[in-house]
Amino acid sequence: MKVLFTFVPREDQQQRLTNEFPEVQFHFAKQDKSLLPEAEIVVTYGEDLSSEDIEKAKKLKWIMVVSAGVEKMPHKAIQERGIIVSNVRGIHKTPMSESVLAHLLSLKRSLPVLYENQRKKEWNRRVGSSELKGSTALVIGPGAIGAEIGRLLQAFGVYTIGCNRSGVSAEFMDEMVRFHNIMEALPKADIVISVVPSTKETKNMLKQEHFQAMNSDAIFMNFGRGDLVENAVLLEALNKEEIAFAVLDVFEEEPLPSHHPFWEMNNVIISPHVSSHSSKYVERSLDVFIPNLKKWLAEDPNPSNLVNMEKGY
Amino acid sequence: MKVLFTFVPREDQQQRLTNEFPEVQFHFAKQDKSLLPEAEIVVTYGEDLSSEDIEKAKKLKWIMVVSAGVEKMPHKAIQERGIIVSNVRGIHKTPMSESVLAHLLSLKRSLPVLYENQRKKEWNRRVGSSELKGSTALVIGPGAIGAEIGRLLQAFGVYTIGCNRSGVSAEFMDEMVRFHNIMEALPKADIVISVVPSTKETKNMLKQEHFQAMNSDAIFMNFGRGDLVENAVLLEALNKEEIAFAVLDVFEEEPLPSHHPFWEMNNVIISPHVSSHSSKYVERSLDVFIPNLKKWLAEDPNPSNLVNMEKGY
Repeated sequence: MKVLFTFVPREDQQQRLTNEFPEVQFHFAKQDKSLLPEAEIVVTYGEDLSSEDIEKAKKLKWIMVVSAGVEKMPHKAIQERGIIVSNVRGIHKTPMSESVLAHLLSLKRSLPVLYENQRKKEWNRRVGSSELKGSTALVIGPGAIGAEIGRLLQAFGVYTIGCNRSGVSAEFMDEMVRFHNIMEALPKADIVISVVPSTKETKNMLKQEHFQAMNSDAIFMNFGRGDLVENAVLLEALNKEEIAFAVLDVFEEEPLPSHHPFWEMNNVIISPHVSSHSSKYVERSLDVFIPNLKKWLAEDPNPSNLVNMEKGY
Repeated sequence: MKVLFTFVPREDQQQRLTNEFPEVQFHFAKQDKSLLPEAEIVVTYGEDLSSEDIEKAKKLKWIMVVSAGVEKMPHKAIQERGIIVSNVRGIHKTPMSESVLAHLLSLKRSLPVLYENQRKKEWNRRVGSSELKGSTALVIGPGAIGAEIGRLLQAFGVYTIGCNRSGVSAEFMDEMVRFHNIMEALPKADIVISVVPSTKETKNMLKQEHFQAMNSDAIFMNFGRGDLVENAVLLEALNKEEIAFAVLDVFEEEPLPSHHPFWEMNNVIISPHVSSHSSKYVERSLDVFIPNLKKWLAEDPNPSNLVNMEKGY
């Protein structure tokens, strides 16, 4: 049986796979898809498969996506063929929550100012630091990642409000609000963090009125998907100082075009969709893949973290 | 009775004092010491009183220092007059521990790289992020501040080793080591943080051999006092890459001279002794001062956090 990786893991990680599964032929090939017609399993970051690829991949039965989002995959072609899709939901929570806290603490403790002053060799003690403690954070979409962010925020003495469609309680949230009632919660929040995936419901979910309702000192963080809010809406909120800061890991268009005003704005931090990156990422993906491949070889085609391609998550 | 502040709190903070103590005359005067002869109590950051000032301050009975260190005060003149000195020990732990975590997370999640790439308008996803989780930290001097740092590190899944003279257990430390045995602990640590005050014992306490024993990936953080290690020793350790990074909030000489090599080193972060700064600092100092002033007015001259001017803390 052949397994095609559309990226190349480290040497020791390849070794781990071949040692564990001597009966399987692994191919690690970035961009080279010539082996697609023979592969039963494809392991991919989920951005490099077209519907033509699916058509060529006659033997393909399982796509293992080492990412959380599947919105760039050819849903229709995959569904028609009944190909199983699974992902690595859950492995993003550590790097992403550390990134969220890194950005928040960096702003509160004036690290960008310190770095800038060091570049100028300037000993300047007027850096205007404040504290994270005592803030209130609104977490939109408190799933596994949001809960981990909530846990860390609470450790810093931050009051957490979770926001989802149902208003059903979520872990590490001091209180919950239904998205329907978000307007009541927005003025209370010093920090508004979105970690929602891209679905029909979340597209352009945040509008002008929501930013107008936010605290003018608020930090808005989009670590979910870029289509949560239109660039123009966010840009206006920042220019009108309806909010104080935006930390953006995702954008309507990625890469963010080089002429976009966000790049030069003092109240915007650009993180080029790297908040889930980690030197431990591929290792953890293999921790998910290996037990699933064992089951697969034992004729149990039910990998963990199955993705419903109709719902999109 | 007259109370002289040698700095000017915010309007609302002044109001808080005058509302609480209508019988007391408060004077808020930066640099202007003309009221010293009449003041029974002086509230100061502790860097602006000379022995001549103490002589002039005929009625002075209590100096409230809204800082932790008292090394810049005229010890002899104060002791001779039997003037009570108290400080705000304890109010630094929140801003300092947030600063320590901010710097660690910023380095692990590559924030300096992100900021630099944004300046260059460069969408570059190869930022080399890693994680704080799973690290081991050695905290030298785990008192109130060190414990708070330990608590937050543990929340991030960091294993904490405390180091003090006695080896007696300290809060939020997974294990303890006596300073006498620090050489055994140094190679295990990914992060070495000092928060020790300046005393006879801690002066030049860390030497070449200690840096040689550290992990070459280690981040060294000095957030205590600058005389813990000689500049030359630290410089050599960084140049020889015996450690990966130094984050320095304190220095042998402050301000750090503009010609010092630290300014331009890629593996040094300079924080100009601001890790305890916070917009909430004066507010919290008043939270300590007000109950003490109430006691004072009730003829109970024993403010909290009395400083022993002989010991220096």
